[in-house]
Amino acid sequence: MRIALDAMGGDHGPELLIRGALSAVREREDIEIVLLGPRELLEKHLAAIALDSDPMARISIEHAPETVSMHESPVDAMRKKKQSTIMVGFDMVRNKRADAVVSAGNSGATLAAAIKKLGRLKGVARPGIASLFPTLKKPVTIMDIGANVDCRAQHLFQFAIMASACSSILLGIENPRIGLLSIGEETGKGNALVKETYSMLSQSKLNFIGNVEGRDVYQGDVDVVICDGFVGNITLKVSEGLAEAVMKMLRIEIMKTWRAKIGYLLIRKALGNFRKRIDYAEYGGAPLLGINGTGIISHGKSNSTAIKNAILVAGEMVRHGINDTISTSLDKYSVK
Amino acid sequence: MRIALDAMGGDHGPELLIRGALSAVREREDIEIVLLGPRELLEKHLAAIALDSDPMARISIEHAPETVSMHESPVDAMRKKKQSTIMVGFDMVRNKRADAVVSAGNSGATLAAAIKKLGRLKGVARPGIASLFPTLKKPVTIMDIGANVDCRAQHLFQFAIMASACSSILLGIENPRIGLLSIGEETGKGNALVKETYSMLSQSKLNFIGNVEGRDVYQGDVDVVICDGFVGNITLKVSEGLAEAVMKMLRIEIMKTWRAKIGYLLIRKALGNFRKRIDYAEYGGAPLLGINGTGIISHGKSNSTAIKNAILVAGEMVRHGINDTISTSLDKYSVK
Repeated sequence: MRIALDAMGGDHGPELLIRGALSAVREREDIEIVLLGPRELLEKHLAAIALDSDPMARISIEHAPETVSMHESPVDAMRKKKQSTIMVGFDMVRNKRADAVVSAGNSGATLAAAIKKLGRLKGVARPGIASLFPTLKKPVTIMDIGANVDCRAQHLFQFAIMASACSSILLGIENPRIGLLSIGEETGKGNALVKETYSMLSQSKLNFIGNVEGRDVYQGDVDVVICDGFVGNITLKVSEGLAEAVMKMLRIEIMKTWRAKIGYLLIRKALGNFRKRIDYAEYGGAPLLGINGTGIISHGKSNSTAIKNAILVAGEMVRHGINDTISTSLDKYSVK
Repeated sequence: MRIALDAMGGDHGPELLIRGALSAVREREDIEIVLLGPRELLEKHLAAIALDSDPMARISIEHAPETVSMHESPVDAMRKKKQSTIMVGFDMVRNKRADAVVSAGNSGATLAAAIKKLGRLKGVARPGIASLFPTLKKPVTIMDIGANVDCRAQHLFQFAIMASACSSILLGIENPRIGLLSIGEETGKGNALVKETYSMLSQSKLNFIGNVEGRDVYQGDVDVVICDGFVGNITLKVSEGLAEAVMKMLRIEIMKTWRAKIGYLLIRKALGNFRKRIDYAEYGGAPLLGINGTGIISHGKSNSTAIKNAILVAGEMVRHGINDTISTSLDKYSVK
């Protein structure tokens, strides 16, 4: 299996990304990595990292001279940079030279490149981005987290199908419980979009458990949460912001007294485990669903563990044929 | 100043609410409380609580035989329970027998009762609910957090005006920085509603700083955050759910080793201060804005401190004439 990694994406530069790739090939023998980026630059980075020979043989370079920056408009990027890492990567998938692309770069541009090069999966109205959120129990799969800001009920209905397939394959959940993100659990609560989607989901044979509230997301009593990309993105970013602020505020309180500082030393390891538990890095990245191929968007801040995990997640999606599962589900569950 | 307290609202019953009222009258000599509820029942509760005579003289009862339960439909409640605590309370405000109502009961029914009895403030298209969120710096005022799930740009524009007035009065911020909640800081990011609102806000003389993302909410670099009630409610509930889950996960990690358990004992006080810092109870409640009077909706889980603070917040709003401020701002800032 060959996974193409955007070696120029993300906030930390190629070296960290290459280290992530290296960890991934060390962990899974059936994975090969193609690094996407300017060949000379990447060769230098590869040479600088001391490698044992075996996994090295499973890392190659595909020349892609252009890079899309974080704040570039996806439309401009597609028009002007035909040789960007992500365009070259999804081209490889289209030509069967790679099975998936992983990028920690500009997420809008990555999505746009995927749709442009691979097209939508047959029957899918709107591809979208799913994400795995940590909870008190198993992670919950949320879709859409930002690809589609203005949606119709039909789109949300298909997100439910696609995110369920993703939850089954990545977390081994057999018949994922699907919740619709709203502002009250009762039927009839929510905005116009939610009310219409509720009606579609409850008439289908999907394992729809009804509306869920923001509070429920982190309880782990639902496996898949459906929302439009505007609401999903805000949910994601609010969570990140709060988690960050909470850690800072906790630190401020602890640093106020010597007693608490000593206590801190004793719980430091537990705090580290806790951080790991709520860290997106552990989940690797956000799968693109509904495209005619496989792609993962990782956080710009990803460390090498996050990149490794994103590659492994891409591997799982390819290995288990996520798109076949989605196509079968679309046929099975769609309301005619 | 007379503030009517729904003594039957909330999850914990009248006694806790009465204790909150008592703390409020002890703290502010210019506040009188009218307890709303069945007279006999409340008299019993009052008698059971040992009181010194002075503040007691500033607590009275207004008979309201009916109670709206937490999950009752607001429409049903208004039609069937004309003598409910909240209907009686807002009637008192209408008849100038009270200055404000505080309720920790059914928030939808409270809002509906307020609009029914008091009407909208002149020029306001949609009254809404604001809320104060803890951040790393000063609290941020968010509006709307659930009253209006389907909004137009004009509604969000007015939320900006009303929430700014609220932020000025309750937090003493002179010219609050207003942000529009979206999924990217750049102009043109967001859904159709956000784009239209962005254009209105940027053409106005309001202190509009542009789009803010979910992450920014908790940084404290913006004073007022505007969104529709669907997005606002999800932001609020996701935050509550995450904060709760985070405390639980932290506890689980700490309880795994003896070392960390001892550490926990040393930081317990710091953890308590931290909890207090992120606790909604410290902020008392969510002001209803845009009605022809004053009302506060408190969380159903409110403890007596939260109730006391909600009463004090209501007092501040009345004392500083929040509705005059809103009316003046509507005249000053509205785009003709």
